[in-house]
Amino acid sequence: MDIPAGSYVVIFANRLKPDHPGYKEMAQQMMDMVEKQPGFQGAVSLREGLDGVTISYWESKEAIATWREVPEHLQAQQSGQSQWYDHYDLQVCKVEDARGFSAG
Amino acid sequence: MDIPAGSYVVIFANRLKPDHPGYKEMAQQMMDMVEKQPGFQGAVSLREGLDGVTISYWESKEAIATWREVPEHLQAQQSGQSQWYDHYDLQVCKVEDARGFSAG
Repeated sequence: MDIPAGSYVVIFANRLKPDHPGYKEMAQQMMDMVEKQPGFQGAVSLREGLDGVTISYWESKEAIATWREVPEHLQAQQSGQSQWYDHYDLQVCKVEDARGFSAG
Repeated sequence: MDIPAGSYVVIFANRLKPDHPGYKEMAQQMMDMVEKQPGFQGAVSLREGLDGVTISYWESKEAIATWREVPEHLQAQQSGQSQWYDHYDLQVCKVEDARGFSAG
């Protein structure tokens, strides 16, 4: 993923509760929705058991703020706190330097 | 992990080649070493099959630059490009906002 310096990134590191009914469907719905958000540049999402990380890249902080207020996303945030997450940490960061490597 | 605004973060998203002899041992050695580096604040590392993400948090860009030049780390970077990684993307970012949640 080619992310230019000056982009913004949201790092969302979380641990699910052992029981998290409905989580997987919500997560898929959010990924489908976020891809259509203005200013969205891409995301990486990995899970190992209950531990997950989602990193999403954005053109601006305003684009992040707009996504945060989308009604379905607000609902997911609320369910996340009340039902699914044991804990999470979230950081909003500005990309200062980016590079990549391909063995291709 | 409590990361204050103003910290720096390195996001390293990678895909291993199907064959990656020696990778696991190196990765463990790097994690053991990085924890003793000045300015290191913490890290999150997840892998799903060949896809991995390591997020490390630092007090300053200088601390990141110092770690990048540690001989064993330079050797790992070189082996990564010549043997282990199919591709990777790396961003250095400044934390502007941080928050967390715990169901506890």
